[in-house]
Parts: sequence; structure tokens; C-alpha cells
Amino acid sequence: MNPSTQPYTFSQRAQKLTSSAIREILKVTERPEIISFAGGLPSPDGFPIEVMNAAFDRVLANSGRSALQYGPTEGYAPLRDWVAQDLKRVGAGVGPDEVLIVSGSQQALDLLGKLFIDPGSRVLVEAPSYLGAIQSFSMFEPEYVAVPTDAGGLMPEGLTDQRVRGARFIYVLPNFHNPTGLTLNLARRQALVERCAAVNLPIIEDDPYGELRYAGSPQPGLLGLGRAAGATVVRLGSFSKVLAPGLRLGYIAACPDIISKLVQIKQATDLHTATLTQMAVYETVKDGFLDGHLPRVRDLYQQQCGYMLEALAEFFPGDVAWTRPEGGMFIWVTLPAHIDSTELLMRAIRENVAFVPGAPFFSGSAPQANTLRLSFVTSPKDKIRHGIRILGRLIKESRRPD
Amino acid sequence: MNPSTQPYTFSQRAQKLTSSAIREILKVTERPEIISFAGGLPSPDGFPIEVMNAAFDRVLANSGRSALQYGPTEGYAPLRDWVAQDLKRVGAGVGPDEVLIVSGSQQALDLLGKLFIDPGSRVLVEAPSYLGAIQSFSMFEPEYVAVPTDAGGLMPEGLTDQRVRGARFIYVLPNFHNPTGLTLNLARRQALVERCAAVNLPIIEDDPYGELRYAGSPQPGLLGLGRAAGATVVRLGSFSKVLAPGLRLGYIAACPDIISKLVQIKQATDLHTATLTQMAVYETVKDGFLDGHLPRVRDLYQQQCGYMLEALAEFFPGDVAWTRPEGGMFIWVTLPAHIDSTELLMRAIRENVAFVPGAPFFSGSAPQANTLRLSFVTSPKDKIRHGIRILGRLIKESRRPD
Repeated sequence: MNPSTQPYTFSQRAQKLTSSAIREILKVTERPEIISFAGGLPSPDGFPIEVMNAAFDRVLANSGRSALQYGPTEGYAPLRDWVAQDLKRVGAGVGPDEVLIVSGSQQALDLLGKLFIDPGSRVLVEAPSYLGAIQSFSMFEPEYVAVPTDAGGLMPEGLTDQRVRGARFIYVLPNFHNPTGLTLNLARRQALVERCAAVNLPIIEDDPYGELRYAGSPQPGLLGLGRAAGATVVRLGSFSKVLAPGLRLGYIAACPDIISKLVQIKQATDLHTATLTQMAVYETVKDGFLDGHLPRVRDLYQQQCGYMLEALAEFFPGDVAWTRPEGGMFIWVTLPAHIDSTELLMRAIRENVAFVPGAPFFSGSAPQANTLRLSFVTSPKDKIRHGIRILGRLIKESRRPD
Repeated sequence: MNPSTQPYTFSQRAQKLTSSAIREILKVTERPEIISFAGGLPSPDGFPIEVMNAAFDRVLANSGRSALQYGPTEGYAPLRDWVAQDLKRVGAGVGPDEVLIVSGSQQALDLLGKLFIDPGSRVLVEAPSYLGAIQSFSMFEPEYVAVPTDAGGLMPEGLTDQRVRGARFIYVLPNFHNPTGLTLNLARRQALVERCAAVNLPIIEDDPYGELRYAGSPQPGLLGLGRAAGATVVRLGSFSKVLAPGLRLGYIAACPDIISKLVQIKQATDLHTATLTQMAVYETVKDGFLDGHLPRVRDLYQQQCGYMLEALAEFFPGDVAWTRPEGGMFIWVTLPAHIDSTELLMRAIRENVAFVPGAPFFSGSAPQANTLRLSFVTSPKDKIRHGIRILGRLIKESRRPD
């Protein structure tokens, strides 16, 4: 956008948006001949299509007039109730007035950006962190400060006085992190909420994958731990991975003061989330459907994860490291320091294999160019093996600098 | 929010949000004994419930895996195509790449605020204008400048050099305006787009009610007129009034440069609009369903409008003026200057009648406290007569200052 040749002036935030080179490269991954480990798409084999069809039918047949009418910004009351009850699962006791239904978790990030971020506000993110959150918060022009991570994920001792000073919040993915696949253990969770309580730093706990645990032990959520420790925690959840992402349905759970501000912000943002969708999802889940459905989804993801871990062990050279997720969709790979994963991607695409380079996931710190993210969810076993074999060969072929 | 007692700091924009006194008053309108002319709810008698149920069923039965999966931010391609074709109706020739599907028209306002508004940017609005747009734009902290209106709506000669200087856009509702019910005639439309072309002022044309015309002659939309005149026009449309608002589905039509920026912004805002909803709406409208459906909806609204105009003529005193809409949902009432409509509302609610006072619809200019908005859509004929009779009596009882 060049103001001198255009008859309009974009905002500063819009002028800063540039089309991402990696996004352009990854557009080719839609070609059918590509084996793509790039996407974050859940497996459609896990979508309960017939159950949802029956739910939409019941809602429209029995309550069509209200399902198609405007609804309250807060969300459909029975669904808010259900979410509040469901949060006992992660150790949080919240009331329905502490739940706001949103149009997918991504919208939650937008609303929280509006709630907390002024231009130049300090925001703490993990290094690396979820790209979609960075894109969303960036609309409000914060200053990012990276908190270091290691093989156990976020390091609570990284919340130094210097880093937290004036920060509006820290954004954390405690379970099966995107992009790293890592899960915070209980000791780190406890240390995190205690430190945040001590320095009045709100925690945004993003947990889209929490229900997709297929290994290790469930950990209590930050919301419940945080409340016990006196920390402010805003929890984001999603129906994208437990039911289907095309519904665009999620929620925010937080104290009533924060929820009531978010309701005003959401009203200005999109009035409310689709009434019909909320009612049909409530109709789907209200009688315990997920108790039978989720084990099947977890089995599917565990199997897919296993295929990829096997292939990595077989085909990747010994100087490559990768994470072993306890759930979710992603494995994070660390190549020898001299290999640039964006350059590797260019070569991989010529052989019809795709992944996401790690660099864009870093904000507020130097990107680690030798990292990359693999999704194991959507490719069948033989393609996973074939694709990982190719990547292994390309990594071995990467010339070590003289 | 008092930072000294809270363990978190809200953004400037969030701190400015206050709970509206009028919103609190209007909460009582949900009580069944209240005759409410306050809401902007379409009549559920116009919702094609069975047709939509069949559409959702066909989509889920035939394309469930893609309907429940993530989709492109731009929107479902066949629906973008359909919208592009449909815009011929308002005299605009646009391609599918000039259409972005959004989660209701309110989201369009949010995305455009992000695209165009920096803190302090000048934004032109009609006096009065749609409250939801003002709330949405206010998230981005513009400076509002009011453009005067008269009995014919927006006055193009009000776009003085002084008002347009540095303005990012003008926001206009050309058809059956909310709140005034007024429609711009062709001469004013032509003068508006020519003036905006001359001064490089983008026009945001919000047309949620355009299909609900039941009197007068259709007027060409600002998008087509603007393109012919060399003006930048961004058109907003909605399925809320032609199908149902609970779907939360609308669109933006604009030149490709603006659409591609908006796509990046929408990706950060909510990834995309629900795939299933887009596919089911496309399934509903693709074979011309609206050609038979809309005349029935228009008849319904015309009849309701007629009931209220009759009652106003019978019960309101001679020194009260009101608009006679050619479509849409609203009548705008101007009381004698000494009557404050907020004070009138307090008395009306004690007699179980509600409406929206006019003052909140004014931004960037002094509010006209003697105005109010009536919606004629949702009450049956006898309640319209009864409610208007009560309002007429209360207006007559309003003491003229000595």
C-alpha cells in the first residue's frame, strides 16, 4: 500500500501486514500430490457427522424460531452452563456467568487483545508460541517479550522482574503446545501461577487440545491452580478438536469482571456467536456424547502420532532432536544448528513434502531457524513414512558449512 | 475498573467502555408484559425454518467432512460467487475475488475499523447513525465528525472541505436507515459518490435492509455508482434480514486490494466464518429460493409498518413528526423540542411500553434528545395500537416548560 497512489489510507496496523513468504510457499500444499505435515487441520475421521446432523435437525425442528433469531452476546445459557460444569474436569470451579461463548478460540484472542493491549503494551509469549495468537495480538500493536522454554516447556524462572515489569499478560499453552507439542508438568504449573500471583500478571491459558491426551497423566488446568494461588487466569477452550473446527465455536472462562468487559467488547465485534450452532452443539454434548466419542478421537491421534515417531526414529539422522507429545497434533523438530528449515522446506516442496519452518513462531526473541513443526494428523501411515523418509534424506544432504 | 484495586490493567479502549444506562433500562423489555418497539429483531415469521433444515441436512449428509473442517478465510467459493452475481441487483459488477464472507455485518464493521482507523483518525458518520457501527468503530478510538441529515437523509453538501480533511472514510446507510428509516434518493447518491471521488474519501455502504423494500422505487447501490464515478466504496451486506440473523452471516464487497488486506485481518480475527453455515446458506439460496421468499417477507414488513403508521396518525399529537419508511424495520420520531425521550422512556416503561431514545445514535454532534426510534416488526397489530396509544397519551402529558 502506497498512500500516494491509493485513494485511501490504511491504519498503521494494516500497513504493517505483509503477505508472508512462508504462507505463499505453503499454498502449494493444497495440491493433492503433496504430502503435507504443515497443516493444523484435525482429522475429519474424528468428526461426528451423523450425530451433529441429527442435532441440527432436532434444534431446527423443535426450536427453529429461537435458533435462527439474534441471541445474547454472552452465549446460549445452557451451553454456558455445560461449559462451566465441564471445567470441573480440569479442576476449576466456575459459574455460568464466568463463561463467554465465542466464535472459535481465535476470536477469544482478538477479544483479549482488545481488552488488554494498547499500542506498545508489553505482552509475554513463550519462545516459540502459537502463530495465530501472535497474529491476533499484533492487531493491537504490543511489544512482545519472549519467555524462554526448554525441553519441559515454559520456564517459570524466566518470569524475571525485568520481563514482567508492566506486562499486560502472559500467553501460555500448557498442554501439547503448538508448535512444540510439549506439556507443562505440575511443578512448573504451580511455580507459574504462584509467580504470576505474586507479580499481578494475568495468565491467558489456551487449551484447544487438552481433551486430546493419549499418553502421560492429566494435569490440572492453570485456571483452577491459579485461582487457588490468587492469580488471574483467563482460560480459552474450543470445540474445534473435540467436535469439529468448521463450527467455529469456543469459550472464554474468567472472573465475572473480565467476562462482563469481554461481553461489551464482543457485542461491538460480532454481536454474538451463531445461535443455531450453539444450540446444536449443546444438543450434541448435553447427554455425555463426548464420553464415548473422545476415546475414539484420542486413539486415532495416538496411532497417527505413533506412525510419525516410528518414521522419525527410522529415517532421521542422529543429530536431529524431536519432542514426544502426550497429546495433540504436533511434533517439534530441532535440526543441527547449521540447517535452515526454510531452505529445507524449499527443497522438500520440490519432492512434494511440506512442513512449517519454526522461525515464524518466535516473537520477541531471535528465531531458531533450525526448527520446524510437523503435524501427524491428516496423512495416512504410508504417506507419513514416505514423507519422513524424504525429509530424512534431505536433512542428511544438507551441506555442513566448511 | 480501578487499577489500584485490580490485579490487571485493561487497555484504554476497554477502560472507556461503560455500561449504558439505556441498555440497563431496556433489559426490562424482555419481560413478556412489555410491548417493545425497542428491539431490532426481525420477525421470526419470516424465517424459512424447514427450507434451512433441509439445507443443513443435505450439506451434512453429502459433504459433512468438508462442512465441519476449517475453510478458507475468504469464504466458501460458491457463496462468494453467488454474492458477486447477486450484486448485479444493485447495479454493481464485481468478481468473486471482490467478495469476503464475514460472520455477520457487525464483524464487517470490526474488520473495517481495523483496516482504516488509528487512534484519533477522523471518521465521518451520519447524524444520527447506527449505534452498532459506532460501538464497533469506537474500539479503534477514532474522532467522529457528524455529517448533517435532513428529511431526505444524508446531505451531500455537508461533506465540506473542513469535515472531510484527513477523514479515513464516511459510513453511510443509504436504504431504510437505522435509526431514521430514511432512503437516499438518486440525486443525493450521485452527489455523494462524486464528492467522495473528488476528495478521495472512501465510502462504507451498509445495506442490511436493502432487500426489504416495500414502497417507492429501488435505487442503485453506492458500490456501482461509486465505481462509475471513481470513488472507493466498500459495501456491506447481510443474510440476517433475508434469511435469519441467528446464522451470523454477511459479506463485504470491495476492490481486490482492500479485500486482500481484509482477508489477512479476518484471519487474525476469527480464522474464517463457519464452513457449515456458509455451505447451508449457499444450498438454501443457490436455486433462486429468495425470489419466492422475499416477497412474503416484504409483505409481512409492509403490513407491520402500516399498522404503526396508522396508529401514529391516530394517537400522536400534531406537533410530533415521524418518517415514512420505504422499507426496513424502523420509524424515527421527532417530538416537540421540550420533550426528552429518555425521560419519556422512563414513564413509558412504567406503563409497559418501550422504545429506544434517539440520543445514543448521535456521535460527533450534539444529540437530539427529543428523538426516538420505533421498531414495528415484532409486535402484533393490537399491541402496536395499544402501545402507540399509551405513548401518544404520555407525549401529550409531557409538561411544556413554563
